[in-house]
Amino acid sequence: MERITSVQNTRIKQWAKLHARKDREGTGRFLLEGMHLVEEACRSDIPLEAILVEEETRLPEWLNAYQQTYPNVELFWVTRPVLEKVAETKTPQGMLAIAKMRVTLPDVLADDCLLLVLDKLQDPGNVGTLIRTADAAGFDGVVIGEGSADLYNSKTIRSTMGSLFHLPVWRENVIDFIHRMKSEHPDLRVIGTNLKESKAYTDVMYTGPVALVIGNEGSGISEDVLELTDQNVIIPIHGRAESLNAAIAGSILMYEAIRQRAK
Amino acid sequence: MERITSVQNTRIKQWAKLHARKDREGTGRFLLEGMHLVEEACRSDIPLEAILVEEETRLPEWLNAYQQTYPNVELFWVTRPVLEKVAETKTPQGMLAIAKMRVTLPDVLADDCLLLVLDKLQDPGNVGTLIRTADAAGFDGVVIGEGSADLYNSKTIRSTMGSLFHLPVWRENVIDFIHRMKSEHPDLRVIGTNLKESKAYTDVMYTGPVALVIGNEGSGISEDVLELTDQNVIIPIHGRAESLNAAIAGSILMYEAIRQRAK
Repeated sequence: MERITSVQNTRIKQWAKLHARKDREGTGRFLLEGMHLVEEACRSDIPLEAILVEEETRLPEWLNAYQQTYPNVELFWVTRPVLEKVAETKTPQGMLAIAKMRVTLPDVLADDCLLLVLDKLQDPGNVGTLIRTADAAGFDGVVIGEGSADLYNSKTIRSTMGSLFHLPVWRENVIDFIHRMKSEHPDLRVIGTNLKESKAYTDVMYTGPVALVIGNEGSGISEDVLELTDQNVIIPIHGRAESLNAAIAGSILMYEAIRQRAK
Repeated sequence: MERITSVQNTRIKQWAKLHARKDREGTGRFLLEGMHLVEEACRSDIPLEAILVEEETRLPEWLNAYQQTYPNVELFWVTRPVLEKVAETKTPQGMLAIAKMRVTLPDVLADDCLLLVLDKLQDPGNVGTLIRTADAAGFDGVVIGEGSADLYNSKTIRSTMGSLFHLPVWRENVIDFIHRMKSEHPDLRVIGTNLKESKAYTDVMYTGPVALVIGNEGSGISEDVLELTDQNVIIPIHGRAESLNAAIAGSILMYEAIRQRAK
């Protein structure tokens, strides 16, 4: 295992550039910071370019297994300053990987598929947390619409807690996605959240193929997307709060959908 | 209206110390950053010590109304550097207030009261978001147990989006709280989240007086608190996620409780 000790190392400098979205997009690479995320990626057979391990860290068993399956993935011992140079987090935990983006469109969607669609959701923490809840709820995929927080932002990835690797998550224009899905699944129902002309979320059935659309934190779902929803729902506010956090609202809807289906 | 232009002003230096918990506790004061939070506090008749307004900001109508009711609250025009000196956020939005802590225990709790109890919840964003959801769900109060994130941390307060001022939120030892509540409401049911010996959250009735306990992000509810719960529930995980975010889990439980009660 090679050692990298200089923060001036060419590859270290290149990888550190992955903090910027344009460099992630240009190279098709992104960073995974911390042992837990690297482990989740390895266990999910995510293609990695390299793994950096802080000196004197004990190599875990799953890493040996991954290396045997993927001998071309480079493994480096690095010093603490080198790890900190590449990491975006202030105190990276012992390990970091450079991963390759891949499009994970689901092959075929079941007739009763459940999808989550994020329309211009801007907070990376909200996007990541919703991916995590979608995974927990057993959803079949998450569409990250244009104008949403970057899926490969380090905060987004951290908030997913590894769920990014557990279910198909892809970026697509929301309008294009709805047209494409409706042609594949003519009975797909697109359910949005909107205060106008909407029913309480508990008064709607979530049977059959369903796409739940969550809109922007401040302005909700875009006008042009709202024209394509089959049903709009609201989550009732009983107290004096003006609204719910977007990740909370989306999670309450997802769990209501699966509560009904489990009956 | 007096102007403060120097970051060396004695009161400005004192208020800037409120970033530290010990100075908040010592003085019984905390900061409200941004126009929206100050507005929510004014509309909720929260006792303020002073309001700082950035020069050239247009004074909103609600501020005039508040001033007439509370003429002793000092109002200052401040320069941008002064505002930034006192604020903890990097880009404070035009206004800031110094508020006085007050204990907001509910006078009397109804026989069917719903309370949220946070046991060692450590992330300020989670604590604030749960207070916001408790408000939205129409809960009667939130108990911030010892070992939880500071209620007066700027991140906690920002995440509440003003809900901190909408319902009773107080700090109390969780064990003491349960004993105290049980003596007042002998039929109170304490419902916790725990993976051991627990039912799905949808298979439990949330009627009568209920206290929902949410535990620490990593380790869940403390052992000694678990000994006092009447029922433990889990939110089923259908996918490969290890767990839900604590604020998400608490919010799903709160909305399930009120969904059942609305029937």
